[in-house]
Amino acid sequence: MKYADDSFMLHTDLYQMNMAQTYWQDGVHQRKAVFELYFRKLPFGNGYAVFAGLKKITDFINNFRFSQSDIQYLREEGKYPEDFLQYLQELKFTGSIKGMREGELVFANEPILRIEAPLAEAQLIETPLLNIVNYQTLIATKASRIKQVTGEDVVMEFGTRRAHEFDAAIWGARAAYIGGFSATSNVRAGKLFGIPVSGTHAHAMIQTYQDEYTAFNKYAVAHKDCVFLVDTYDTLHSGVPNAIRVAKELGDQINFIGIRLDSGDLAYLSKRARKMLDDAGFTDAKIMASNDLDEYTIMHLKSQGARIDAWGIGTKLITAYDQAALGGVYKLVSIENESGEMVDTIKISANPEKVTTPGCKRVYRIVNNENGHAEGDYIALDEENIQQIERLKMFHPVHTYISKFVTNFTAIELHESIVEKGEVVFEEPTIQETQAYAKQNLKLLWCEYKRTMNPEEYPVDLSQTCWDNKISSIRAIKEKISKTMNTR
Amino acid sequence: MKYADDSFMLHTDLYQMNMAQTYWQDGVHQRKAVFELYFRKLPFGNGYAVFAGLKKITDFINNFRFSQSDIQYLREEGKYPEDFLQYLQELKFTGSIKGMREGELVFANEPILRIEAPLAEAQLIETPLLNIVNYQTLIATKASRIKQVTGEDVVMEFGTRRAHEFDAAIWGARAAYIGGFSATSNVRAGKLFGIPVSGTHAHAMIQTYQDEYTAFNKYAVAHKDCVFLVDTYDTLHSGVPNAIRVAKELGDQINFIGIRLDSGDLAYLSKRARKMLDDAGFTDAKIMASNDLDEYTIMHLKSQGARIDAWGIGTKLITAYDQAALGGVYKLVSIENESGEMVDTIKISANPEKVTTPGCKRVYRIVNNENGHAEGDYIALDEENIQQIERLKMFHPVHTYISKFVTNFTAIELHESIVEKGEVVFEEPTIQETQAYAKQNLKLLWCEYKRTMNPEEYPVDLSQTCWDNKISSIRAIKEKISKTMNTR
Repeated sequence: MKYADDSFMLHTDLYQMNMAQTYWQDGVHQRKAVFELYFRKLPFGNGYAVFAGLKKITDFINNFRFSQSDIQYLREEGKYPEDFLQYLQELKFTGSIKGMREGELVFANEPILRIEAPLAEAQLIETPLLNIVNYQTLIATKASRIKQVTGEDVVMEFGTRRAHEFDAAIWGARAAYIGGFSATSNVRAGKLFGIPVSGTHAHAMIQTYQDEYTAFNKYAVAHKDCVFLVDTYDTLHSGVPNAIRVAKELGDQINFIGIRLDSGDLAYLSKRARKMLDDAGFTDAKIMASNDLDEYTIMHLKSQGARIDAWGIGTKLITAYDQAALGGVYKLVSIENESGEMVDTIKISANPEKVTTPGCKRVYRIVNNENGHAEGDYIALDEENIQQIERLKMFHPVHTYISKFVTNFTAIELHESIVEKGEVVFEEPTIQETQAYAKQNLKLLWCEYKRTMNPEEYPVDLSQTCWDNKISSIRAIKEKISKTMNTR
Repeated sequence: MKYADDSFMLHTDLYQMNMAQTYWQDGVHQRKAVFELYFRKLPFGNGYAVFAGLKKITDFINNFRFSQSDIQYLREEGKYPEDFLQYLQELKFTGSIKGMREGELVFANEPILRIEAPLAEAQLIETPLLNIVNYQTLIATKASRIKQVTGEDVVMEFGTRRAHEFDAAIWGARAAYIGGFSATSNVRAGKLFGIPVSGTHAHAMIQTYQDEYTAFNKYAVAHKDCVFLVDTYDTLHSGVPNAIRVAKELGDQINFIGIRLDSGDLAYLSKRARKMLDDAGFTDAKIMASNDLDEYTIMHLKSQGARIDAWGIGTKLITAYDQAALGGVYKLVSIENESGEMVDTIKISANPEKVTTPGCKRVYRIVNNENGHAEGDYIALDEENIQQIERLKMFHPVHTYISKFVTNFTAIELHESIVEKGEVVFEEPTIQETQAYAKQNLKLLWCEYKRTMNPEEYPVDLSQTCWDNKISSIRAIKEKISKTMNTR
């Protein structure tokens, strides 16, 4: 490579750089801007999402600095004037980020992160932030869905070979852990994030010894804890009998954990294998299954009475196969004008769901004090004092007739301070704490929001002030257009 | 993080480590093994795939070395004996890799890469190799499909924000370029791989100035080359008229390339916008479109007479949205036995498509000398001399009655030497050469294999010797099982 891969500052869309240059050239690059990061639609038809991505974001902010090779590349491309490159070279991130903790449950159209920074800086970090949050939140959510179906079963992430390149494999493994998985097969993810690592052997080991019995024996000699993969030649006529034979012969010399099925009819094979293990006296031996599993196949296997104790999930989780993208966006909601005042901004669109909600907002989770469950989330402008309200009106932001009044509630503000004036101030919890936090959060939700098919829509409502502000912004834009342009 | 992220050696599944330890403990870790990397099914229902991933594989091999922190982590986990860790610490890759060049067209069930290495080494690299090839080949193939529909139109990769984390964004951008795309929005991909970078501005810039006309003007002052995004407020009543106004006012001071549509009815809007641009005298101005596009939407837009000249492709390409994984596998086909002889190995399965083809094989593309088109690919064992055959029988490896004889052909061997005894010997072409190579390769295929819907199945056939060898291996395994086990 001509240039060193020594910085992530150019891991952004070219238009961010072009806008930064426009602002810098126009002298408005230091104006204070407020952007919100959110998504418009929950993935997988799920009733909630699990936020992940904060760790990588703080890593990114901690290393926010154009490298010499970045500047050199931009110079040789000849797209920007030298004094703009000088500005970039000295640029530090000086803004602030507020947002949710990893493991927080998040919903459509509520700000997960709120970025307040000089305009050019806020613009440059848009792309990497979206790249991080969109993927990691998608996978944490998919993992949580799978956990809704597997209950207390052990579930392991096995997807590295099908992940979208290296980063997806390790950050996906981490997100899966946050969503409730027990372990990953990726050793590097274990090393970097402190996640338990799991795995035994592959078909190749059986092929190497050309004989299943020999191979299981060799493995057992090298590893006390044994899970034997039994489908290399014939699960019921070769794999399971050989596993039982080795387990019997070695007895207490090994810890025979169980067997793994990786192909064929998992429902049938697991029932037959269970009987063979039980008949041989190995009633505690576990049966593990893998092979393109997800929440749908697992639910079906369970409904057929499959005797599977633990699940290895590869492709379908790590690629979020049934919906491979979360559509997170990053929108300007407020900007400093030439007089130094903050003014709200809006984008309207022929696609109604793409209309933004202007103004600096906070998100509150409204928890009913009587039953401990969430009534919904409530988005209000900074200046509103929610804690003083005794009778809160919550209404659907599109179908406004859907409304209710909530009394006796606690309004939990969901945004914490992550970065202040360029310094990461958020103290990173352990990955185990984050997993526990996500699990705890799920208890707040009524089960109607948690089922994997056709969940109820969890209310994410705007305050009356916030809603009125949005409607009047739309009206103002429409009036301006009709005044200045020819209309139909 | 407790451990430095200073090596990719642990970017593998734990079971690879466990198998390596088993082999090491049994003293067979140095036995010569031959693995093949291939996939079983073409993605997207396409008629071919475009191989990508070799550059990252050679990077990986060049850095094959356990770091101190890797060893430290494994030691603290306490899973392995100290002398095995010592072995890992000193381990170098000493094997060889043969395989296809990037940009080569590949098909199901033919070896893309062939790894010949000491057993433990070959096993350790399985996971990273699959992680690389599965993703990059998937994206190069998707990009090539999109190019089949867009023809000579300019097509740009805009997907970073929806990519599965950072690596997918840049390696996906590179794979898209190999597949025929013109540019990417990711500046880092441009820096690292020499891909052209493209982009203008976002909605946020319009919102910043609270006025579209002002914003376009500011952008035009800072950038000579202008593409204006026209859908922030109202495409036809505000965006296009403002773009035209700025282009007229600034005249020769700017290079008004055109406009970009990012929402709404792209067919209708592009036709209306085309007329407005033409009426204003900007007949050369281009119309660019984006918004969840892929080969299907583009084909529909074209069939509706949409006046779109260039395409920005995000989510659907970079995530391979309609099929987010390629199922590449890595299978042992031959292993040295205790006498030092190489013996073929096979894995059989209750899923017939999972049965492997034993033996060390080469892949030949059989090109008809009369018309310059490929008759299919032909897989033969090392010892077969294809070049001496005058009348080649090609037959379907499952439905064997489908067969033909080919005379007057050229058999092009597709595997080149990539790594020899641990040293990368393959000279990396420029990315432009690789793109040209892929384009050239497509000319070999009859158009029936290239259509995006229901393409003909391109023949990938086994030589008679190779096929006989497979059948007799299956028979031998089945006999062995029925002899040693109780059968029904």
